[in-house]
Amino acid sequence: MPSFKLTIAYDGTNYHGWQIQPGIPTIQGELERALGRILNEPVTTHGSGRTDRGVHAVGQVVHFLTGRHFHTDTLMAGLNALLPPEVRVCRVEEVGDEFHARYSALSKTYQYHVWRSDVVHPFRYRYVYWFRRPLDAGAVDSATRNLIGVHDFTSFASVSGECGDHVRKVLDAKWERFDEEWVFTIRANGFLRYMVRTIVGTLLEIGVHRRGAEDLGPLLAARDRTVSGPSVPPSGLCLLNVEYPASAHDLTPTEVPGK
Amino acid sequence: MPSFKLTIAYDGTNYHGWQIQPGIPTIQGELERALGRILNEPVTTHGSGRTDRGVHAVGQVVHFLTGRHFHTDTLMAGLNALLPPEVRVCRVEEVGDEFHARYSALSKTYQYHVWRSDVVHPFRYRYVYWFRRPLDAGAVDSATRNLIGVHDFTSFASVSGECGDHVRKVLDAKWERFDEEWVFTIRANGFLRYMVRTIVGTLLEIGVHRRGAEDLGPLLAARDRTVSGPSVPPSGLCLLNVEYPASAHDLTPTEVPGK
Repeated sequence: MPSFKLTIAYDGTNYHGWQIQPGIPTIQGELERALGRILNEPVTTHGSGRTDRGVHAVGQVVHFLTGRHFHTDTLMAGLNALLPPEVRVCRVEEVGDEFHARYSALSKTYQYHVWRSDVVHPFRYRYVYWFRRPLDAGAVDSATRNLIGVHDFTSFASVSGECGDHVRKVLDAKWERFDEEWVFTIRANGFLRYMVRTIVGTLLEIGVHRRGAEDLGPLLAARDRTVSGPSVPPSGLCLLNVEYPASAHDLTPTEVPGK
Repeated sequence: MPSFKLTIAYDGTNYHGWQIQPGIPTIQGELERALGRILNEPVTTHGSGRTDRGVHAVGQVVHFLTGRHFHTDTLMAGLNALLPPEVRVCRVEEVGDEFHARYSALSKTYQYHVWRSDVVHPFRYRYVYWFRRPLDAGAVDSATRNLIGVHDFTSFASVSGECGDHVRKVLDAKWERFDEEWVFTIRANGFLRYMVRTIVGTLLEIGVHRRGAEDLGPLLAARDRTVSGPSVPPSGLCLLNVEYPASAHDLTPTEVPGK
């Protein structure tokens, strides 16, 4: 049965997040409606993970199985003709049926955009969080480095979030500074709900010296959401990329001994 | 009486152009409403010129006279607090009362953005025109060079447009090419209605070899709107800048002999 991997980009401003919900505009809802029209059958898509209401993506990954055969270019053109312009399919690949957008993922990369200048450009306000107060770049960078590694992120997770393991491995975390924006990039083997937004909110508190850069370690150790900073708004957050092992894209399913 | 010059940027997607019209969302309408609330009196603003429905600006210039005195920073912060995020005041200057946003202008610069790749980025679709067909860059550039100079632009003006003189001086016109976009920049001492969009539509016809690059001269000479190409959509158009002589910003009104 053919399995397709889609790489999609979306402006999440007017959507209630990735996950399909009856009667509410969601990215998955738009995608499954368009796919259903093309394939002429109901389709269930599997995303690499949810994005929350108002969060954007330029490299969300989705897969689905179908009994129908399609040329990838035809499928991409058809989907983009049916989808609203806020949701775009950037790439379509046929993958082996062992590929799973969520379970095959090795890591994900998010970016958070902080607008630093006095006036938010009218073409950019949907994609940034406006934070004008002076920030101590050295303190922010120093705290950011302490995020890298394996930590229990309970202090940076939604209180009503996932049960179970809150341990994640942060592979990279850094800030880049441009004329009008500071951009935070974080790559991890997984993210808890609100994790990036709470980390950024806490790093901004460190940047304005409301907390010390050295507070980050004790915050992680506390494993208590009430000790960390506020979550910054979803507008600044964007799922940049989902990383998979090369083998996950293999068209030939792995041989299963005894089959 | 203090006169203020505002430099404003806007996303024109959801507005019926610059010019105020009762009961219809326009940029001038938004601006005069916000100014009226701050100054506590009705205010008439004068733009450097109209922009059409759906056209954007990053450097539109506006002036108004008021009996009230304001610090420019206070006025700018107040306006941006009251205006919708699609309309931003980027700069406020107090100017001499000889300054007029329209009549003092020496020239204006517009840009037109043509999206060239297969998929329009969901953050960019409001600001571009999607045109994927192969384009002959050499032919487009050659025709573009012929725009520079003093010409009668009747062939590139709205049929129902301005009466009178259709002669304009194009000071510069060029294309820049990036990975996903071609950007056309044109500076002239004035523009007729639809002039930039009709020039771009005609240049794209030259780019796909529907017309020859050498046709541009005869098209100008014909002084007939029916001979040129279609107008491309407003989404790609942006008023980049309005240029004034340095003296137009002088706070001290020019001395008038005998006064």
